[in-house]
Amino acid sequence: MRYQLFYWPQIQGRGEFVRLALEDAGAAYDDVARAKAGMDKMVAMMNGGSEKRPPFAPPFLKAGKLVIAQTADILFYLGPRLKLAPREEAGRLWLHQLQLTVTDFVKEIHDTHHPIAGSLYYEDQKPEAKKYAHYFLKDRAPKYLGYFESVLQKSGGPNVLGRKFSYVDLSLFQLVEGLRYTFPSAMKRIEKKVPRVVALRDKVAARPRIKAYLASERRLAFNESGIFRHYPELDE
Amino acid sequence: MRYQLFYWPQIQGRGEFVRLALEDAGAAYDDVARAKAGMDKMVAMMNGGSEKRPPFAPPFLKAGKLVIAQTADILFYLGPRLKLAPREEAGRLWLHQLQLTVTDFVKEIHDTHHPIAGSLYYEDQKPEAKKYAHYFLKDRAPKYLGYFESVLQKSGGPNVLGRKFSYVDLSLFQLVEGLRYTFPSAMKRIEKKVPRVVALRDKVAARPRIKAYLASERRLAFNESGIFRHYPELDE
Repeated sequence: MRYQLFYWPQIQGRGEFVRLALEDAGAAYDDVARAKAGMDKMVAMMNGGSEKRPPFAPPFLKAGKLVIAQTADILFYLGPRLKLAPREEAGRLWLHQLQLTVTDFVKEIHDTHHPIAGSLYYEDQKPEAKKYAHYFLKDRAPKYLGYFESVLQKSGGPNVLGRKFSYVDLSLFQLVEGLRYTFPSAMKRIEKKVPRVVALRDKVAARPRIKAYLASERRLAFNESGIFRHYPELDE
Repeated sequence: MRYQLFYWPQIQGRGEFVRLALEDAGAAYDDVARAKAGMDKMVAMMNGGSEKRPPFAPPFLKAGKLVIAQTADILFYLGPRLKLAPREEAGRLWLHQLQLTVTDFVKEIHDTHHPIAGSLYYEDQKPEAKKYAHYFLKDRAPKYLGYFESVLQKSGGPNVLGRKFSYVDLSLFQLVEGLRYTFPSAMKRIEKKVPRVVALRDKVAARPRIKAYLASERRLAFNESGIFRHYPELDE
């Protein structure tokens, strides 16, 4: 099966969680919107004219006739197929539950620079962003990362499932990478409390296919159009 | 199978999306935290001492040995078992994708009164809430409801899957009910553009088990501790 991934071509964003799974598995896929005329194809599908089951927003994945949107739903589908999730129901539901908590975390990370409205520029909501980021760094980031730390502790590590590697481990790598880019000072402090999460990040970074991917042109750089944005005034 | 639902006992909140599915199916369940000593049980599970796979937050469902958190994950599990979802993979993934869009919408509804931090009172973030609610009512609520309207149009209605009823239809009912309570004026205007969503809401309200549930003491009233809060100053 050759997959087609549809996502905004200039940012890592939510699409990156899917890309990391495809890359780690060595799966065959096209990053459609980054190829010629790809944006037109993506926009046509978003407008949903011919889709009986239209996606609400990117990313979405085309797998044969199936079109799946919502990052966590895509990973739920891909997991066992890419050998990044168990096949049994209890294990799949547990991984998915963790991925949905990643989803919630990502939304709050996004809102550190867009607390009022996605349709406004960051520059139009800077005082609110400063307030939001303060509570995010004080309460929310430590809470989420502390939760994943406790999951790794209970699993026995080094992965969220214990010995077995999964797509959630890839997502935790991406969260740490993104948060280090976004809040370098605050992360230095927060990371001290979550050594298992940091060790997992290092382990993922050293996986041969991930290492090759990160060094390739396929990995976009973090930037100030994405979810993880470095605005020094928001760091603490 | 007798299910145990764990959720905050004073609000509908996210737990209500699960309750509606259990009630519509006539399933046997305990609303644990609303019974004597139930809160202690819930808090113990949240603190996760004995849980190998601890939930991040309520709601969570105990089904035999399985503990599942995240509203959409719970509904994914319950769907086919309550005959509120098809058994085939493509249909389940599609329903789940829609439910995850409901989840996103619910988070934005919550943020209309808590745009800065969940740890602060509404009274401490009123000016920001006013701004957030303005863009929410102008852009986001019409966009989400318009999306579900287009899904109903494409399915042929009256349900999101067409003839077959599902848990997503119950969630759309809850969204309309909650938004009417929260923003009565704005909803009068917005509803004019989404007649299929409104017709679905009416159809769900007339289902015998839902009608009985809504009239029972098991259905909590909307209030200003929940997700759907009526603050007249935020309505437009």
